Formats: sequence, C-alpha cells, structure tokens
Amino acid sequence: MLTQASERAQQATRLFEDLQSRICARFEGLEGAGARAHFESTRWSKPAEHRLKGGGHMRLMRGAVLEKVGVNVSHVWGTLSDAGIAQLPGAKESAGEFVACGISLVAHPANPHAPTAHMNLRYLATSIDWIGGGSDLTPAIEYPEDTAAFHGALRAACDSYRANAYEEYRDWCDRYFFLPHRNERRGVGGIFFDNLHGADWPADLTFLKSVGEAFLGVYPAILERRIAMPFDAADRARQLAKRGRYVEFNLVYDRGTRFGFMTDANPEAYLMSLPPLASW
Amino acid sequence: MLTQASERAQQATRLFEDLQSRICARFEGLEGAGARAHFESTRWSKPAEHRLKGGGHMRLMRGAVLEKVGVNVSHVWGTLSDAGIAQLPGAKESAGEFVACGISLVAHPANPHAPTAHMNLRYLATSIDWIGGGSDLTPAIEYPEDTAAFHGALRAACDSYRANAYEEYRDWCDRYFFLPHRNERRGVGGIFFDNLHGADWPADLTFLKSVGEAFLGVYPAILERRIAMPFDAADRARQLAKRGRYVEFNLVYDRGTRFGFMTDANPEAYLMSLPPLASW
Repeated sequence: MLTQASERAQQATRLFEDLQSRICARFEGLEGAGARAHFESTRWSKPAEHRLKGGGHMRLMRGAVLEKVGVNVSHVWGTLSDAGIAQLPGAKESAGEFVACGISLVAHPANPHAPTAHMNLRYLATSIDWIGGGSDLTPAIEYPEDTAAFHGALRAACDSYRANAYEEYRDWCDRYFFLPHRNERRGVGGIFFDNLHGADWPADLTFLKSVGEAFLGVYPAILERRIAMPFDAADRARQLAKRGRYVEFNLVYDRGTRFGFMTDANPEAYLMSLPPLASW
Repeated sequence: MLTQASERAQQATRLFEDLQSRICARFEGLEGAGARAHFESTRWSKPAEHRLKGGGHMRLMRGAVLEKVGVNVSHVWGTLSDAGIAQLPGAKESAGEFVACGISLVAHPANPHAPTAHMNLRYLATSIDWIGGGSDLTPAIEYPEDTAAFHGALRAACDSYRANAYEEYRDWCDRYFFLPHRNERRGVGGIFFDNLHGADWPADLTFLKSVGEAFLGVYPAILERRIAMPFDAADRARQLAKRGRYVEFNLVYDRGTRFGFMTDANPEAYLMSLPPLASW
C-alpha cells in the first residue's frame, strides 16, 4: 500500500506546488508592465481506466523577457508495467507499486546575455524511496559573477544538508550535463543528485525545499542583471547555436526525456525543455 | 582483401561524386543572380595513424533560397572495431574488414512553401556487400502535386530496377520516417531501402544512379515552383515547428545519426541534416 510513501509524496507535492506558484509569479514579475505575458496553465489527470492514477499541472509562458519557460508539477502512482519494474529500483519487491512526484523547470530567456536554467526536484517510492534532482545554468555568453552566484546559492543549500554534498553533486552535474560527441559541457554546471535514500525524511524534504529556494533566490536575480543589456545579431546567433547544443543534449542523452520517448507520456510535458528557437 | 568490393566502392564513389557536383551546381543555380550563395567545400581524410583509411568531401551552402543544404560524399575502409563488427552483417566473416561509401543530402529551403528533402545512397561491403539508401520529402505546407511528382519520379527509378520495388521501398520509408512519440509521419514519404544484396552489381549500381537522377530531376523542379511564393509569419512559424519535428526524428531515431553519436565521427558531418533554425 506504500502508506508512508504516499504521505511523503503528498508533502513533497505540496512543496513543489508552492514553489511552482511562487517561481511563476516571480517570472511574470520580470516581464514588466504593459503587454505583459502570463503563464498558461494546463491541468491533466490520467484517465479513469488508466493503469496509473494522478496527474499534474503544466505551466508555460512565452514572454518578451522569458522567451519560453515551463514549470511542471506532476504526481502519479499505481502499478508499473514490466518494463517499468525493470527500470526502477525496488519495484520488483513492491510488485510494481510506486509513487512519483516532481517539479521540472526550464527557462530560456530572450536576451542572449541572460542564461538558460534548469531545475528539477523529485520524490520516488517503490519498496524503497529516494529523492533526486538538480539545477544547472547554461549561458550563451558567460558572466563569471553569474556562475559564482548560482553555484554559491546551491552550495549553501547543500551545506545545510550534509558535509561535502555540494562538491559531490557539483561533480555529478558536470559528468551528467556533458555532450560526449562534442566533447563539451552543456553549460557551467550546478548540482545533480539522484537515488538519495535518506534515513531522515524531514531532512530530505528540507533539502528539496532548500534547493528550490536557492534557485528562486538566485536565478531571477541573475536575469534582472542581464535582461536589459543591449545585444546584436552576433549575440543572438551565439545564443541560438548554444540552444542547438541544448536540444542535442536533451534529445540524445537526458534520461527523463529519453524515458518519455519510451512511454505513452505527453510529449508536450517531457519536451517542454526544448528551446523556443534553436539553430544549426 | 575485398578486391572486388574495393572496385565496386570506387565505381559507386565516382557516381556519388558526379551526383554531388551536379546537384550542387543545380542548387547554386536556384540562388539566382546578385549576392549569390555558393557551396563551401571541406575535404577530409582519416589521419595516417588511424585504424580507418579514406575520407570525404562535405559541401554546405547557406543561401537565400536554400537556407541550409549539405551534400556529403564519403569513402572509408579498413578494419572495424569489435563494436563495429557486431553491428555490420558479414563483418565477423571478413575479420572486420570493410569498405563503405555514400552520398548524403539534406536541403532546408527558406520559403515555407518549399519542402525539405533528404537523399542518401550507399554501398557497403564486408564478407558480403549490399546497397542502401532512399529519399523523402518533408513539406511544412503540403502541395499534393509536389508529393505526386516526387513519388512519381522515385517510382520510375524503382520500376526500372525490379517489379514491386517502389511499393516495397515506399512502405519501408513510411515505417522508417515515423515519430512514434508524436504518432506522426516525418513528411509525405518517398522510398527507403537497405541491405539489398543484388546478384547483379551493374543493375544495383544503375539503380543507385537512377534514384540520384530521379531526385535531381524532380526536387529542384519542385523548388522552382515554390521559392518565389509569398509567405507570412504564420507560414514561417509552421515551417519552424515542422523543422522541430525533423530534429526530433534525426536525433532520437535516425540510425545514421545515432550511429554517429557512438563513434568518433565528426559531428559536423552526421549532424549536417539539422535545420538552420527550428522552433518548439
């Protein structure tokens, strides 16, 4: 029955929904007055006859400052297919029963001086349960102070969780967000963590919250420094080419995206990360 | 030693180089007078110390009519790695010795009324040898007469090869250029064939030539009908979204592209197919 896990998933989902709402409000605030962009909202749920239960809330904005930004929360549970059981740790022992919830965010600003960012937090349970997530920054034009601020905020979140967490998750991020065929990093890093089976659930939940708050504290502030900077066609071309690399990473290597291709999930959800415009 | 195969590969490569040169000339002709675009030319060869020998000739143009078009010919041979031996039929029996040559073309016109097209022809040999290839059309805005002309030209090439070849390769194309996650075809089809082990090499070589000539005869003529048509922002948006699907197919499903990611091949060669600009 995964009673404890269901309770934890509800707590995590409330946290993710709260973050979603506050992050979206902050992003809308950056669009400024006048013909102001707003997030569109799509609520979905698994059909009654579906093997899985639950649903989600997708929010998407195409604005003047944030050319495209998606912030999705989902919370699903039920019994996995055999293929799913093979992929998820502990699922054999729970006879396929599972609970999963998460928040996933990708922001592509219009101004080439403003970096693209990704943030994702999740809680999963089968016969065991764990948290995962991360956040990373992908500037087309790099500003060392932005990179330092971003890493600094994530470091603080990690330091409050446990010693050396930042160093470990930073290195994990560098290994993960890498394009072998280009021999290039996707961006300037951040943190990445997965399969953290904490003995202390309140501490894990607090860590997820800290990462979300760190992101909310630092990324919009970076945007505020960059979104009014003048740029030319060469800057835009550089940004569009960098976004091409982002597409390559997400379609070829990203686990969440590739998992999406193998399921009957809604492509608008797992491909929300793709940039509004990219060039090759 | 693959003596016979080497001879055949040389014949096929001469054919591909001739096609490349005539197709590029025809495309340059479409760019019109004035600030006329030309194909850039990159010749490459495997370094002397490399396990593989041979090289290729990449030609790329970014024009006003053809926003991006690549036409690449390559001809390589040598001894495959163990991973390569596992992938290529007959390679175990040749102790990894192989010869491969091909021409690969993708054209992305600027005008949304003008369809994107792909054409590829190849000859491969291990202990056995075979031909493969195909050509397909991807309009953002479909014109039934373009689709009919394209299929008609390919049908004629197939009919001269053997009975029912067109129907078989057309269906193969429809199965291959399909995006399961979108439940969408990539375009309006064409032909696709692979692993054709002909008992009659001159007939196989003639078939490759016929497909190339059919493409050269029909696709530029389709472009001529479309490239001067007026279009608006909505047409352009439709084209960029369709190109996004093209990127999804090529990065997620296309065998040649995915094979490229697993090798040390030059990404500029196997990612030549990606559009100049795409949207999501």
